[in-house]
Formats: sequence, C-alpha cells, structure tokens
Amino acid sequence: MTAERLRAILARVQSGDLDLDAGLDELKHLPFEDLGFARIDHHRALRTGTPEVIFGEGKTPEQIVAIALRLAQTEQNVLVTRIAPDAAVALQQALPETEYDAVARLARIIRKKATPQAFGTILVVAAGTTDLPVAEEAVGTLEALGHPVERLYDVGVAGLHRLLSEKEAITQANVLIVVAGMEGALPTVVAGLVERPVIAVPTSVGYGAALAGFTALLGMLTSCAAGITVVNIDNGFGAAMAAARINTRRESHG
Amino acid sequence: MTAERLRAILARVQSGDLDLDAGLDELKHLPFEDLGFARIDHHRALRTGTPEVIFGEGKTPEQIVAIALRLAQTEQNVLVTRIAPDAAVALQQALPETEYDAVARLARIIRKKATPQAFGTILVVAAGTTDLPVAEEAVGTLEALGHPVERLYDVGVAGLHRLLSEKEAITQANVLIVVAGMEGALPTVVAGLVERPVIAVPTSVGYGAALAGFTALLGMLTSCAAGITVVNIDNGFGAAMAAARINTRRESHG
Amino acid sequence: MTAERLRAILARVQSGDLDLDAGLDELKHLPFEDLGFARIDHHRALRTGTPEVIFGEGKTPEQIVAIALRLAQTEQNVLVTRIAPDAAVALQQALPETEYDAVARLARIIRKKATPQAFGTILVVAAGTTDLPVAEEAVGTLEALGHPVERLYDVGVAGLHRLLSEKEAITQANVLIVVAGMEGALPTVVAGLVERPVIAVPTSVGYGAALAGFTALLGMLTSCAAGITVVNIDNGFGAAMAAARINTRRESHG
Amino acid sequence: MTAERLRAILARVQSGDLDLDAGLDELKHLPFEDLGFARIDHHRALRTGTPEVIFGEGKTPEQIVAIALRLAQTEQNVLVTRIAPDAAVALQQALPETEYDAVARLARIIRKKATPQAFGTILVVAAGTTDLPVAEEAVGTLEALGHPVERLYDVGVAGLHRLLSEKEAITQANVLIVVAGMEGALPTVVAGLVERPVIAVPTSVGYGAALAGFTALLGMLTSCAAGITVVNIDNGFGAAMAAARINTRRESHG
Amino acid sequence: MTAERLRAILARVQSGDLDLDAGLDELKHLPFEDLGFARIDHHRALRTGTPEVIFGEGKTPEQIVAIALRLAQTEQNVLVTRIAPDAAVALQQALPETEYDAVARLARIIRKKATPQAFGTILVVAAGTTDLPVAEEAVGTLEALGHPVERLYDVGVAGLHRLLSEKEAITQANVLIVVAGMEGALPTVVAGLVERPVIAVPTSVGYGAALAGFTALLGMLTSCAAGITVVNIDNGFGAAMAAARINTRRESHG
Amino acid sequence: MTAERLRAILARVQSGDLDLDAGLDELKHLPFEDLGFARIDHHRALRTGTPEVIFGEGKTPEQIVAIALRLAQTEQNVLVTRIAPDAAVALQQALPETEYDAVARLARIIRKKATPQAFGTILVVAAGTTDLPVAEEAVGTLEALGHPVERLYDVGVAGLHRLLSEKEAITQANVLIVVAGMEGALPTVVAGLVERPVIAVPTSVGYGAALAGFTALLGMLTSCAAGITVVNIDNGFGAAMAAARINTRRESHG
Amino acid sequence: MTAERLRAILARVQSGDLDLDAGLDELKHLPFEDLGFARIDHHRALRTGTPEVIFGEGKTPEQIVAIALRLAQTEQNVLVTRIAPDAAVALQQALPETEYDAVARLARIIRKKATPQAFGTILVVAAGTTDLPVAEEAVGTLEALGHPVERLYDVGVAGLHRLLSEKEAITQANVLIVVAGMEGALPTVVAGLVERPVIAVPTSVGYGAALAGFTALLGMLTSCAAGITVVNIDNGFGAAMAAARINTRRESHG
Amino acid sequence: MTAERLRAILARVQSGDLDLDAGLDELKHLPFEDLGFARIDHHRALRTGTPEVIFGEGKTPEQIVAIALRLAQTEQNVLVTRIAPDAAVALQQALPETEYDAVARLARIIRKKATPQAFGTILVVAAGTTDLPVAEEAVGTLEALGHPVERLYDVGVAGLHRLLSEKEAITQANVLIVVAGMEGALPTVVAGLVERPVIAVPTSVGYGAALAGFTALLGMLTSCAAGITVVNIDNGFGAAMAAARINTRRESHG
Repeated sequence: MTAERLRAILARVQSGDLDLDAGLDELKHLPFEDLGFARIDHHRALRTGTPEVIFGEGKTPEQIVAIALRLAQTEQNVLVTRIAPDAAVALQQALPETEYDAVARLARIIRKKATPQAFGTILVVAAGTTDLPVAEEAVGTLEALGHPVERLYDVGVAGLHRLLSEKEAITQANVLIVVAGMEGALPTVVAGLVERPVIAVPTSVGYGAALAGFTALLGMLTSCAAGITVVNIDNGFGAAMAAARINTRRESHG
Repeated sequence: MTAERLRAILARVQSGDLDLDAGLDELKHLPFEDLGFARIDHHRALRTGTPEVIFGEGKTPEQIVAIALRLAQTEQNVLVTRIAPDAAVALQQALPETEYDAVARLARIIRKKATPQAFGTILVVAAGTTDLPVAEEAVGTLEALGHPVERLYDVGVAGLHRLLSEKEAITQANVLIVVAGMEGALPTVVAGLVERPVIAVPTSVGYGAALAGFTALLGMLTSCAAGITVVNIDNGFGAAMAAARINTRRESHG
Repeated sequence: MTAERLRAILARVQSGDLDLDAGLDELKHLPFEDLGFARIDHHRALRTGTPEVIFGEGKTPEQIVAIALRLAQTEQNVLVTRIAPDAAVALQQALPETEYDAVARLARIIRKKATPQAFGTILVVAAGTTDLPVAEEAVGTLEALGHPVERLYDVGVAGLHRLLSEKEAITQANVLIVVAGMEGALPTVVAGLVERPVIAVPTSVGYGAALAGFTALLGMLTSCAAGITVVNIDNGFGAAMAAARINTRRESHG
Repeated sequence: MTAERLRAILARVQSGDLDLDAGLDELKHLPFEDLGFARIDHHRALRTGTPEVIFGEGKTPEQIVAIALRLAQTEQNVLVTRIAPDAAVALQQALPETEYDAVARLARIIRKKATPQAFGTILVVAAGTTDLPVAEEAVGTLEALGHPVERLYDVGVAGLHRLLSEKEAITQANVLIVVAGMEGALPTVVAGLVERPVIAVPTSVGYGAALAGFTALLGMLTSCAAGITVVNIDNGFGAAMAAARINTRRESHG
Repeated sequence: MTAERLRAILARVQSGDLDLDAGLDELKHLPFEDLGFARIDHHRALRTGTPEVIFGEGKTPEQIVAIALRLAQTEQNVLVTRIAPDAAVALQQALPETEYDAVARLARIIRKKATPQAFGTILVVAAGTTDLPVAEEAVGTLEALGHPVERLYDVGVAGLHRLLSEKEAITQANVLIVVAGMEGALPTVVAGLVERPVIAVPTSVGYGAALAGFTALLGMLTSCAAGITVVNIDNGFGAAMAAARINTRRESHG
Repeated sequence: MTAERLRAILARVQSGDLDLDAGLDELKHLPFEDLGFARIDHHRALRTGTPEVIFGEGKTPEQIVAIALRLAQTEQNVLVTRIAPDAAVALQQALPETEYDAVARLARIIRKKATPQAFGTILVVAAGTTDLPVAEEAVGTLEALGHPVERLYDVGVAGLHRLLSEKEAITQANVLIVVAGMEGALPTVVAGLVERPVIAVPTSVGYGAALAGFTALLGMLTSCAAGITVVNIDNGFGAAMAAARINTRRESHG
Repeated sequence: MTAERLRAILARVQSGDLDLDAGLDELKHLPFEDLGFARIDHHRALRTGTPEVIFGEGKTPEQIVAIALRLAQTEQNVLVTRIAPDAAVALQQALPETEYDAVARLARIIRKKATPQAFGTILVVAAGTTDLPVAEEAVGTLEALGHPVERLYDVGVAGLHRLLSEKEAITQANVLIVVAGMEGALPTVVAGLVERPVIAVPTSVGYGAALAGFTALLGMLTSCAAGITVVNIDNGFGAAMAAARINTRRESHG
Repeated sequence: MTAERLRAILARVQSGDLDLDAGLDELKHLPFEDLGFARIDHHRALRTGTPEVIFGEGKTPEQIVAIALRLAQTEQNVLVTRIAPDAAVALQQALPETEYDAVARLARIIRKKATPQAFGTILVVAAGTTDLPVAEEAVGTLEALGHPVERLYDVGVAGLHRLLSEKEAITQANVLIVVAGMEGALPTVVAGLVERPVIAVPTSVGYGAALAGFTALLGMLTSCAAGITVVNIDNGFGAAMAAARINTRRESHG
C-alpha cells in the first residue's frame, strides 16, 4: 500500500532513522516511473551508446538537421531512418561526421560506439534484390546498436537450392531477421530449418494482389511454422530493434 | 428441333414453296443457338463420358435427387459436388449405383467410364491434413473425368525435407494441383522444382490473419515463381476441371 | 538411416562391387533430407522433451485420439491445442495421464518433463478477463515446453494504475507475452517500460470496429514503441513457441 | 420574405380578397423552410461571430478568393481550412487582414471576434510531432470560434512518463481533443485519467499496417475506455466543431 | 523536477517544518496517479452512484452472478450490459432487486440512485424499429447514471416529415444521441437542425452493402455536418457514457 | 387534420376572431409536414393499392402479426418481405387471406388489387437456380404492386446459347431486372442486347472470392455496358421497387 | 456479308446445285452474329443521333484525335468523356466543331442533333460544389443524347431547408440523377420526396473514412428509401446513359 | 561441377586415397543443390533458348543495363519486363541488338531463337484497347519463349457479336490467355465456347468500384465457367509463362 510505505519512509526521515539521500533513494524505488525513471533510461542510453532515433519520413531537411544538432550537443549517438537524399546532404554539411547509406535510407552520427552484451550474430536474410532497402535498414540499425550482423540475400523460395546451400550460415545465427515481399514465404521455410528466433519483415515489393505488402504480412502471420513473429511492412528498423532486445544479455544471464 | 426447322425451310425453298427473300427472312429470325452448337456439345459429353455436374451446396436432398434422376435417365454420368451426408444417403437410396466420398463431399453415378485422351498423370499435392477435403474433391473429380491421378499429402513447407524427398513423384507428373491453406507457400516451392503446369488451390484452413483463405489466395497470386495459375478458395473441383483441360489431348496433337 | 546408406555405397565402390558410374547414380538418387538432418531433429525432440503438437481445431475426437495414441507409443510428449471438450474427454479415456485445461483449450500428455536451458521467466500479461483463453494457451504451452512462466492479468490501459503498480514484475521477466483485444494498446505501453523482448498477441475480443481482432493486430504492428513483434490473432500457442525460442540458451551462450 | 408573404395572404383573407379555399391553397404551396428558420440561423451567425467555413482542399486559389470576397462583403467572419500555400498568398493579397497558419493549413478573416459562452478551456493533446498539422487545425479552428484553447504535444504512450507528468493540465480541461496516429492508443489512456469529454482524432501518420489512419481510427472506436467519441481521420476541424458544441453554454444552463 | 521536490519535502519533514500528515498530503498531490488516485475514484463512484459496469457478452451466467454478487456486497450500483436472458434470470434469482430490460439487454442493481449534476435532458433519437436494442441500451445506461433522458424513435430520413414534425423536441435537448443503421444519414440531418452536441451511433441493421454496420459508421465519420462525433457500431452504452460526460456539470461550471 | 386546421385558422382571421399577427404566429408553429404532403401520400397509397411493406428479417412472428393486423384494419394492402416460415404460418392463422411464397420469402395480404398505369412488362432474368429466391422476391413484389412481370431463369453467361435463344423475350420487356451471383456478368451481357433500362441485382451465391455477393456487386458497378444501375446484394425487393418507379406512367406521360 | 451468303446458299438449294443436307451443313457453319443484328444497331445509331463514346482517360491526345477523326468521317456524333485539357485542345484543332466543357471533362462533336422520344425532363441534383464535375458529366452527356435536363446544385442534407425549398423542381422531373460524396445521404432524402426513378451517383469527394467514394457508394446501396439504383463512383456518364434509357419512349408506349 | 566432384570423391575412395569415413564426411558437406539439379536447369535453359528474365519495375537504367550485360556475356537470351522508356534507350545503347516494345514495356535480347516443342498456337484475347499493354506483355513474352501466338482484341462482352464472329479463331487455339479489366467477364464467356485451357488475366483498367483490378480478379476467380485459372492483376508475363508450361510437349508426350 503506497500511502503506508510513504508514511513509513517519512517517519524514518523525521526520526533521523534515514538520512535525506537514503530517503530519496527509497522514494526513487517506489513503483511508478515518475520517480526519476526517465532520466535513468537516459543515463543508460549514454552509457551503452544506444542511439537516439529520428524518423526522417515527412520531415524537412531543416527539421532533421535541427533535431540532430540538438541531440549531437550531448554525447548522444543519433540514427536517422528513412532520410531523403537532400536531407542527408544537409545533415552531412551540418555534421560532417554523418555516415549516410542511400540504399538503407539511414544516416548515423556515432560519437561513442555502442557495446551491447550481445549473445551472437544476427543474420539478415532477404528474398530478392528489391527487398534490399528494407534489409539494409535492419543491418544499418543493428550496426548503430553495436550488434554483430551478417547478410544472406537473394535466396527466394522459388529456387530453393540457393537457400539450402547456405544452411550452415543460417543455423549459426543467434537471431534471424527474414525479409520478403510478394507471397512472403521465406520466413516459414527458414523457421523450419533453425531453432533460433525468427523475425519476419514483409516488404511492399510486388503489385496487384501483393497489396503493397499486406499479402506478405498476412502470410507471415499465418505461417505454418510455429514461433515466427512479425513486424510492420518495410519496417527493417523495428525488426532490428526487436532482434537487439533478444540478442542482448541481461545482467542476470550467466 | 433446329435441324428439322432448317431442313424444312430449305425444302420449301427447294420446292419453290418459298422464294429466296422469304427464305432469307425466315433464316434471319432463327435464334442463334439453334444452329446446332449446343446439341453437339451434348452429344460430345455422351460420347466421351464427361459427367454432368450438380453443385450440391445449398440444395435440398430432394432437389439433388430430382436433378440426378432426370440426368440418369439418359446415359449421362453425374457428379455431385459439395453434397451433404443426408443428401448422399437419399441419393444412394434413389440410385443405388451412387458412389459417395464423405471426405471429398462428392457423389458419382458413372454409367459409362470416361476415356479422355490423357497425356499423363495429374498429381494432387496437399500441404496439411486439414487440406484433404479440397484435395480429395480434386482427386474425385479427376477420377470421374477419367484422368490418371496420384496423391502427395502432408508436405508443408515448414518441413521442407518431406517435400524434397518426393522430388521424383513431383517431376514425373504432367500437371500438378497444389493445395494449401494458411500462408499458401507450397505451390511456389513446387513450381520451382518442376517445369509442368502448376494449378494452385488456396484453402480456408487457418484462422485470424488467414482471412478464411484469402491470405493463401493472395500469396499464390503474387508468387515469386512464374507460371503458377490459381483458382478460387477451396475450389478443388475447379482445379480438377482446369487440369483436365490441360491434360486432354486435342485431335491436332500428334 | 542415411549415414549407413552412404557408408554402404562407398564400401561397395571401395570393394569394386560398384563401379564409379553406378556409384554416382546411386548417390544422385538419395533424397536430400536423408543426409541426416530430419532424423536428428527427431532425436533431439525426444532428448529435450519438446512435445509434438496436434492442432485440434477442425479435427474429430476420433482423429485426435488416433494421432495422440500413435505419438504416445514413442516416448514423445504430446500437446493438443484448441481441443474441444468432447475430444478432451475422449482423449482422457484413451490416455488417462492426459491433463486437460478447459479455459486454455489444451490437453497435454507429458511422459518426460521438458528441461530447456531457460534464461529466465516468461511473463504473460493480459489486458482483460475475456483475453484469458488466449493468455492461458500461451501459459499452458510454455509449461509443456518446460519454461518458467508467470501471469499478470487484467491490467488494461484505460486504468493505467493497475499496470504501473506491477512494474517490478514486468521488469524482472526475461521475455514478455502481452495479450490484448479491442484497440490492443497494452503491448505498446509495456514495451515502453522494459528493455526485454515483447511479443504482442492480438485477440478477437470486441465487436464492430474491433474487426474480430484485426484492429488490435494492426495497432500492434504500427505501435509507436520500437521493438515489438506480433503473432496471429488469438495465437497464444505461437507466441509461446516464439518466446521459447528466445528464452532458450544455445550451446554457444556462455 | 416568408413572414411578409404569410401576412399578405392572411390580410387578403381578412379583407375578403381571398376566400377560405383560395387562402388554403396558397398556404399549402409555401415551401417549408420559408417559415423563417434558415434566416434566423444566419442572423445568429452574424451576432455570435461564428465564422463561415470554406473547405479549401480541391479548390483553386481563384475559387477560394472569390468565395471569401463574397462572404467578406457581409460582416461575416471567414475560416478557410486545408488551404494550400499559393491560395493563402492569393487570399492575403485580396484580403490583407487574412491571418494564415501554414502548419494548420488555415486562413482566417476575423471581422468581429467570436464570443461564445464558453464553459472552460479545451485542451488539444497530440501524440507525436508529425500529428501537429491536425492538432493545429483544431487549435486554429477553436481560436476562430473564440474558445479558450491550450496545447499538450509529444506525449505518446510508449513513453508514459511524459503524459503522466502533465496530469494537472489534463484534469483541468473542460473538453479534451486527443490527436494520435499509428496505433492511436493515446485517447484511451487520457480518457482513463479524466472524467470530462474526450474527442479522439486519428491521424494518417504511419505506414504499412497503419492503413493511412484507419488503424488509429478503428482502435479509437474500440477503445477499452468508455465514453470516447471519434471523428474522421485528420479531421482536426471537425473535432474542434464538436468540442465547441460541448463547450458552449446554452441559455438554459445556469 | 521530481527529485528536487521530493528532497524538499523530505527535508521539511526532517526539519519538523512539515508534520507527517502534511508531508503525506504533499506527496499525494505529486503528479502520477499511483499516489492513491484509484481509491479516490472509487470513493467518488460510491458517493455519486456511478455504477460499476460488467460487459455481459461472452460471460457465463455463473461468471456474471459471481461478479455482481461481489460488487453488490459494497454499496456499489451495478450495470450489466449485453446480458443474455438466461444470465438475467440467474441474476434475478441471486439478487432479487435486479431490474432487467430484455430489449436493451441490460440488468441493473441500483442501491443508491445516482445524482449527477446534469445540465439538461439527453435525447435518444433512432431511425427505425430495428435500431431499438441499441437505442434502449443508451437509454437504460443513462437512467442508471441518473441523467434525464427522452426518446424519439422511427424518424428515418427517407420520410423526412416524421423528423421535422419533432423539431421542438430535438432543439430542446442538451445532448443528442442519434442511432441509425443502413446508410446512417440521420445524425447528419439532425446535426443540421441543432447546435448542441450530437453523438452518432451506427447500428448493424441492414444486409449486404450495409457491411454489418460499417457503412453507417463510415457515413457518420464523413458526415457533411460539422461537429458530429461517433462511437463503435451498436455501442449504445458507449454513447451514453460519452453523453453523460458532456451532460455533467463540473465544479467550476457556474 | 392539417387542411382543417388551416381552414380553421383562416376562418378565424376572416371572422376577425384572430388578428393578423396572431394568425401569423399560429401558422408559423404548424409542423412542416402538416401542410398536407404526408397524408396525401397515404391517400394515394390507398387509392392505387400500393402495399405497405414490412421488412420481416429480425422480427418475431408476434411482431409481424401485430403490425400486419394493425395495417389490415385499414383497406391497406400489406407485403411482408424476408418472412420466416414460422412467421408466415402465424400470419396465415391471424389473417387467412395471406398468400405465402416460401421461395421468395414473401407474404402478401391484398385487399384491393393495385392498378398502376404500367408501360409494359418487367422481365426478371436470373443466371442460376440458386439465384431464384432473390429473383422471386422481385417477381412477388412486382405482382403485389400490380405490374405485369415475366421470368427468364437459368441463362448464365458460361453457356451463352441459352441466353441468346431468348433474345425475343429480352427485347420485348420494358424494364429488365437481371439477377446474378458469382462473377455477376449477366447484366452486362443483357444490357448489350437491349436498349431498355436494366437493373442489376447481385446475389450472395458463391463462396470464397465471391465475397458473399460483393464480387458480383462490384462487377456490376464496373460493367463495361453503359446504362446499368445496381441495387444492394440479394435486394430483389429494392429492384422491384425501382422497376416499378420506371414502369409507372406519370400523369404527364401521353 | 451475311445476307449475301445466305441468299447464295438458298439460291444454290433452289437451283438444285446443293441438296438439302449439304445446304443444312453450310447453314450450320455460319457464325451466329452474321445474321445481321450488329449492323442494325449501327444503322439505328446513325438514325437517332446517339453518339459514339470514347472513354478519354488513359488515352493520349493522338489516340483520341485518331479515333474521333475516323468516327467523324461517317455522320456519327462523337462524345469523348474524361478528356484531359491538352487532348481537348488537340481535338479542337483537328475538328474545329468540337465543343469542350472543362468542368465536365467532355468533348462533343455533334453532326446531327439527337432527337430521342423523351418522356420529360431529367433533373441532376448535386450535394456540394465539389461534386460538380460529376454532375456536369451527367448533364453534358444528356445534352449530347438530346434529353431535356435541368440542374439543382448545392442542396446537401446538413442544411435541409435548401433542398426542401426546391420541392417543386424535384417533383416535376421525370427522372432524377442525384450526385453526392462523403456520407452520400442525399439520394435517400430525395427518393423520399418523389415517386419517379432516382439514380444515385456517389462521388470520390471527401477524405479518410470517405474511402474515395466507397462510403457514399455503400450508403446509397443500403439506403432506407426503397427504389434507388446506383452507379459506379464518379460515373456521371453512366448515370446519364441509364437515365436516358428510362426517359426514352418505346414504340409500343402509347 | 557436381557430377565431377562426386566422381572424384568416389574415385579417391575406390583408389584407397580416401578411407570410408573421410569419404562419408566429404559427401555430407556437399550442398544439396550441388547434386546436379540446379546446373542441369541452367544447361537446359541454354539448350532450349528460354530467356533469363529481369523484372524491370523499380530498377534504375544503370541496374538493368548492368544485369543484362552480365547475362549477355553468356549465350543466354534476356527478357526485361516492365521496362521504362529511358531504361530501354540505355539498354539499346549498351546492347544494340535489343528489341524494345514500348506498349508491352518489354525489351528482348535474343541470341538464339527458342525452339520449344509447342503443341499449338496460343491465342491472346483482350476485352478493350486499354487492356493492350497487358495483352502485349503476354504476346511479347510468348514470342521470346518461341511459342506461336495470335491476337484477338476489342471483343468485350457488352457487344457479344464481336466475340461470337471470331468463334473459329477461338476454337482453334491450343491455349487461351484472356485479358480483361472492369467486371472481367470475358474469360467466363470464352471458357463457355472452348474446351482448351483458359488463363484469365485481370487488368487494372477501370475506376472506383473496379478497385484497381481486384473486381476483375475476384470475378474471374468466381467464374461460373468451370476450369478457368487466374493470375495476378496486369500479369501478362505470368500468364505467358503458364501458357508456355501448358503448350510445351514433354518428352513422354507421344
């Protein structure tokens, strides 16, 4: 009961049983995030190098540069997703250390390399060459987060031998991000070959009945392979963030 | 009877009973189809043993029996699709030679075995055991049409080895009907293994994002394997009819 | 057994019993999967206690009993999902050791307790009481897989204090499965509170604009919290399988 | 003028100029609305300062200027919504007192400040910075209607502390307009914190499964918080009009 | 800044500047709901008579009785929505004071009549007789909440004269709930006649293109009358809750 | 009675009993529709025999009987659409002159045969036997309205000769109602053969991609034949009402 | 030329050059349509002045000019719908008698004024000013077809008095085309005021939940006013063609 | 080369150069597809002239030229589908033997004419002139594959006589590709006239309810003519690939 706990803490401060800082500490650990929790996150981000993320789509070059400059004044790393070429140029002029990847539509300003406690390698698998922007968004995001990442591209299920010949690479990854458009069958086949977590990313590649990625999305959600999870269409960034959550060792992990 | 009417007009022109213009007028007003084309079809059906088809869904047992009795009075073969168990019982009482397949929901009354000029075997491939009613509807229809047919079931893409171990059966078929629900990826994988026509049949197996078969349907339509064609959800009958069209030799085929 | 077959072929080539071309021919016709990979999976399942799963929906009690009996003859554990009450009764009569959970619609026959190398506890969070069947399907599946699991129910976002008062339980889990229907906002809020993997499960709870779970599904896919992954509507089983993949230590994990 | 016409008819009946039946006939053919009700509305708009609204989307600058000039000839206030920049420039040239807000896409020509009998302040809450054009459309419309309005922006539910730290502002508003895209969860959380009316505005912010705002719309309609009402996607104007209806004191309100 | 405020309060308690209760009070008013806010709500509900609501759909009679009994042990009023007839009978047996309305599918157990500070009358308007269950759900909920409510039924827009002849009733209401299925045009017409808040409730009445209520829902959202707000399909309860929020006088309202 | 009220007011003005302004006031407060227009409709219905229509779907037998009894007390004809068999039995018991058509799901109580000024015959064309309930609903409604009507059934476009052989019947109709499910192509073909109005009625016949009639509906709306109009799915009644509007001679028609 | 071929066959039968069976055989192989029916249509078009129609959307100016020039070489009238401004300019240069209406996106080349036997006037009613292009497409098409046509614009249902004040114009029309976007309620209200045929045209005016015209389309299809028929979204041309079919007197009409 | 590698391993086992276990190990690590199946495909493509296909949509001119140059270095034929005009120009500059068809959006580089064992002619039927790009994509692809192909265009079902007058061409084809937009009824009518395989191709021609081709797609899938199969919207290429599979004689075909 919070009121009781509060009263007890106050009583112990009043009685001198607790000094001010100890009382403050106890209050900080009361459930509920307002007691300083946001700032702790912030400290943690600075310590581990997790970048602050700007979603670039629908923002002007001026807006992106302004936000990035403000963030860059701290030691914060910055990742801009879905950045347009003109915004990238403007960003590089304002912050010359900006790394820009046109295919992935990513810009990164890395002040301090992130060093997560990663369990292993994250493998990004893509069905076709038109899926590359999404796959590369995942790769570039994982690099910014400091996770080891490898690529396996152009292994669509209509030519199964290409996929099967890379079985070793597939089974050695700790987490797999599988990117596919059209009918989106690749994650199902991959999940049948491995026991590790598989994150499926549908892409908007295709036309007509491909429904701008919804056919792949729905197919991945109804996959006959158990244990696949799915993110939004073309969301290479989100898949990378989910893979990083999985691939990061907790303090309690031996 | 059109032929008779035509003969009568010609006879009256021949005999001078009708002059040219009057004969012309009479001919102009004959309805189009009475020029004999429908009846030829009918004769052809009787000759080749192609059954007359009754779509059983939404018809009462009485209606199905009545239509079947009428058809059975000719030498016509009869195929009833999507027949309910009680209708099948009624049909067997009225026409004891009725063969009934409860899984395929088919009843057949075969007076004269169909003998199409078939090129080869039609292979019906199904992903899971819940797809069997649709697959068996295709098999039973093909049997009624007189085409050689074989089955390959329970070879879903999440366990690829089951499919790959049957590569020989797959490559020897002349036409393949591939039945799958959920994400519907099986036809894509099969079409990558063979050069023969592949007819994909989505099934309504699955729940939620499976959208009662639409996810499989859309996935098959956007397959990354070129040359797949698709029929309606759960339409094993239609797939069989299409396969029969492909597998039947024309007179001009050497 | 493939290794044996390979060895036999090689031995016959070595002994001159087969000449080179005949040996080549025999090797070419070995099916792919006979190179050992499928059977190892099977052995592994037996060793670790991972149950074989029967999807009970759309199967008759007779079919479920038949499949379960066959599986139970080996030392294989069996999990039946979405089992109807009458099928559960039939299964308990045939296999008295069957445990049946009516809410979760699960039946389990555990011959040998599974002992995965689990990293930590999996927390199943549910928004409302009507979401319980889906949440309990996840819980029951995880128990069958041998993973430590805890519950946190009735913490919908319209009464935020219920959720926030359980922040400790939330932050201590290694993986979180978050189950919600209607607008499906709970996973977003939870993912903002923790750094661990969050698997979102939309449920078909709600009416009208809830679209039988699609509104929750779409909302979870477009969550403003990065790093959430999603499974099919009402798919508590799939979420558990995905969580188990994440929560299982690989050999290479120190 | 209807009243005049009525009086004239009555006078002619009174004077015997029209007999009863002829008078009856004339009365039957008076159009309904000429009984005065439309004109009163118009007078009321002039008296209270409620602006006449032009929906600017799909109209040329010439059309907008022409309509605005005609309205401005009366003492009528004018509000143009969804106005394009070139139309705004043209309007400012034609009517220099035009106030233009590029973010809200609003132009206002205020001849006489509106003075509604407002109960209190309307708070416009927005989840993210990309929701601003919609939020500002609501703010600008409310200003044109003369209602007190305040802003609370960038308080998305993935970072709950930002919202919770503004609980005081939230609970002091008389009506709340809550603007959110993507999964649209913010109105649900806000409605759980207050007892006052909450109008939810979905925005088209997001991609893929966000469905151009429909996911947010559907989520708001199925909110687990009772008493939320919803307007069309991106319809900041409509939300403001609804809030103004609620926030306006009737004569009978004590 | 929370930490500072906390420290300051603690320091004043430590110094004796604040006694325990005053310190507790100050802490209670810190932003964030956990500091006792749920209980205050609860107290308020008891004081004002606002009923606790049980959503009856999908719950067994046993579950509903159990929850209602527990709630009824306090002085809490209880409202059960979407209750099935057998559950209502069971509830009346367990709690004889239960009032049951079969058309509205509502059961009420009123221990203490609610006495909100209502501004005026809420008018529930319905287009056709088939819309009555939804309209009556709104009426019955408002009665349980203690608001004055009146009905105006069977005034569809295809026979405009029925609606127009009730213009006085329409213009005297403080809030209007307008219920309509099929094309859902009634709220648009009503909102053109009044200046007060209009809450539109689409119903699932109709077939085919009525899309189980979505056509009415979409039509109401795109109404050409500005200032309408909308709730979920068939959600008479939600409309009543929203109307009650609007119709309740705040303390600051003069 | 409006005419009487008007006459009374005028008489009192005439007699000096009311002065001009008081008369004006009384006239202003007459409800709009009391200016005679609704009652004239009613009189007209009685004169022409147009039946009053009860939509039977979703009404109990008791409700239908009650409404029909009330209507039958006047000389009004009654038409009940979508009536269930048990309601029809109840209606026949209450009103023995009830004619019931089980296929069309219509009940009619004809007191006075309708005698519209019909231009010609309305032809109801149906593609398949499963479309009959909808086609017969149109036929039965037209009979109740007193229009000459003929049938042309089982003329689907997959066997064009059946349709073409009836070209004479098709071209002699004054209005055509064309009923079809599945792909809904029949109205397009028919409209290419005639110059008279064609009303297309999609039916819910079909499965899977037939989308419960939406595929036929959409196909009819996008027909490549100009001048087709469309009604709701399965709406034989609506098509008949539209055809009757077209086929009825106005007074001004020579 | 069919007539010639028929005459030749008959002459050869008459002369004994062909015997009866040979003549029969030749007749059987004549293609159906060569019995003259297509050409009669063509002659009829020339006689009545019905224009040949070119759908301009998606055609280049060159293509439109080429087709129009070919048609114009006969005495055929030509109507080009959905023509772009540059194509209209090109057409006017090639055929100076071209009349071009930019709002309606129509071009007309009238060689001989059409003179249908029209029953009366067709009234085109439009809800808002943004619906004008569609309404004017209907008006312009009717003019090209030679039907009397009148306009009634800007009478949306949110301000009912505007519509009701034009009741006389509405009731005097023989056929009504009612054009509306957004919620599309106008045809329902109009059909409640008249007994003549009402053709509803949904427009793509609106955003978000307006679904590019589908909300209006669905609303019109489910109208609570019986006897409305509907055409495709924005299809003013199709509505005009349907109205012309209705408004044209047949020879058998007295 | 796999066969060589296998032979080498066996030879080394035979010669005693490898012992049994070492040989076994080497065999186990050969990738699956190296057992010869992929390369044989490649050889077969070179032998038969089947072109390698580049999907041009979404690729830059530079990318297309680069891929084509690489392919052209072998003797491989190349087909580029959906190529933009600027990419075609670039390709012709790099590879002057490029044939470019602007309507079909195809570029072909044919080094060695394909010579499939074709059964007969493939007829491409198109409903309207706006369907030509899709029809020509099919024609051009079939030409590149070496199949005999003929065209039958502008035979929409609203003017049936155009189609029926070409019955001979229709019945002589071995496979038919039928291309149609809008309501997509043409394949149904064609399939009723022939017994050969019919592949239906929906096009995105049309607006509003045409749903960018989905109405035609759905209509074709639910066709009342049995034995039609369907490909994706606008997928002339896929239809051609499917037709080629059907029209190619297998070795086992007599």
